Amino acid sequence: MDGVREFSWPVRVYYEDTDAGGVVYYANYLRYMERARTEWLRRLGLDQSTLARDPGILFAVHRIEIDYLRPARLDARLRVTVRIEEVRRTALGLAQSVLPEDEPQAPCCRGRVRVVCVDAERFRPVPLPAFITRRLHED
Amino acid sequence: MDGVREFSWPVRVYYEDTDAGGVVYYANYLRYMERARTEWLRRLGLDQSTLARDPGILFAVHRIEIDYLRPARLDARLRVTVRIEEVRRTALGLAQSVLPEDEPQAPCCRGRVRVVCVDAERFRPVPLPAFITRRLHED
Amino acid sequence: MDGVREFSWPVRVYYEDTDAGGVVYYANYLRYMERARTEWLRRLGLDQSTLARDPGILFAVHRIEIDYLRPARLDARLRVTVRIEEVRRTALGLAQSVLPEDEPQAPCCRGRVRVVCVDAERFRPVPLPAFITRRLHED
Amino acid sequence: MDGVREFSWPVRVYYEDTDAGGVVYYANYLRYMERARTEWLRRLGLDQSTLARDPGILFAVHRIEIDYLRPARLDARLRVTVRIEEVRRTALGLAQSVLPEDEPQAPCCRGRVRVVCVDAERFRPVPLPAFITRRLHED
Repeated sequence: MDGVREFSWPVRVYYEDTDAGGVVYYANYLRYMERARTEWLRRLGLDQSTLARDPGILFAVHRIEIDYLRPARLDARLRVTVRIEEVRRTALGLAQSVLPEDEPQAPCCRGRVRVVCVDAERFRPVPLPAFITRRLHED
Repeated sequence: MDGVREFSWPVRVYYEDTDAGGVVYYANYLRYMERARTEWLRRLGLDQSTLARDPGILFAVHRIEIDYLRPARLDARLRVTVRIEEVRRTALGLAQSVLPEDEPQAPCCRGRVRVVCVDAERFRPVPLPAFITRRLHED
Repeated sequence: MDGVREFSWPVRVYYEDTDAGGVVYYANYLRYMERARTEWLRRLGLDQSTLARDPGILFAVHRIEIDYLRPARLDARLRVTVRIEEVRRTALGLAQSVLPEDEPQAPCCRGRVRVVCVDAERFRPVPLPAFITRRLHED
Repeated sequence: MDGVREFSWPVRVYYEDTDAGGVVYYANYLRYMERARTEWLRRLGLDQSTLARDPGILFAVHRIEIDYLRPARLDARLRVTVRIEEVRRTALGLAQSVLPEDEPQAPCCRGRVRVVCVDAERFRPVPLPAFITRRLHED
């Protein structure tokens, strides 16, 4: 893993995502970011519904830092990126952005998301299983 | 239970509830209706998180019919009503409305919601426990 | 238009769509249905953000009837269908279903949605513009 | 304004707020935080729907930093706090927390939110109107 590879996932803005200001509601970018993390894991062969049953883990978000740079509007085509910044024993540091498809150099928002591997019952941090770390490094 | 009593619960419209049309997004009235059903059950002494653990049941929505009559806007104060129409062995028929606090004769929407008592694991219909039917009839 | 053609749109279930019951939250099927209506209109060359500006109309949902038949879970692949049942002067009657991709004969939910063409400012019904009716009939 | 006063707003966790992990979905704490900011402004006599029309401004979130400390579950009673950290020409720095009502010393999450005053049409930063700054300092 050289930290350079970047996964990206397309998203379309629907009415459900917008608010009375005419733009995407600020919390909904977090939904977009999670869709992209989910699809990035899926591409690595990791389904979260499977992981929740066996070995009984979830990825819980521990910290987010997001800069909102410009609003996205109804019908916009966006692209959400995921890039690993750090792999630790129980946590991952990810860089994520939401970009207009047709103007990727002017992001809607960008930020850092730290997810922690927790047991699905009590939400206590547990080490990332070896088979997951391996796939992350192969990414 | 004479079918006349009506429970109501106040709701305020926030940005999260609206869409780019400037009004409450149509699916969000269903969230309001569920908040009112939850608070109505709670007033009857029934907490859904407790019921899910013991006796292991959920109320799943089986059917909705909703007429949208006029839009609600940001900052509006609404009131959501719940009235029992029918108690059956495994299901409840409820009438619900969402009304502007200051103009209750002109509802935003009104409809019928049929909820079924299901086991929390497999979502199969199960008879309403006797202690629940009793409280509904006392309502 | 022979009422037989059916549009369908794929949807994936993410964490954002589910609730503590472990299944898709009932209001979120309405979001899926609207995504499908939006993409169906887009395929007909009709962008809602464009229509809102010129000729200044929205499609507002006037009535829904939905039967919830079986729950969808995290990571499920769904397909949302749209079929015209009726075209009237100011309104459309649509039949919509949400189906598991791998078991389309056992829908998660199905229903009817009546949308009304309204002016974007005051939400008063207005006749469907001729260019829209034409495209609907060509569908 | 001495930065010590704190506004707080009660929130209840409903099914709509939770996800299949059994806890509040991470993006939904941002909805709670916005409800509290809205009510805090309302208590200062500032309605956002009024401000959007006259003088035509919105408060847009520019940056968030949130630490998620422990999960909240269905039916939990929470309290959301707002405290001014900084008033600048076009922006406000706020500290916000989401606390369990019955265990306020163990927050679910806490963070910083920077909101910028923008014109409602083009989302360009504009100076906070004097009547708003005055009320913030009286807070």
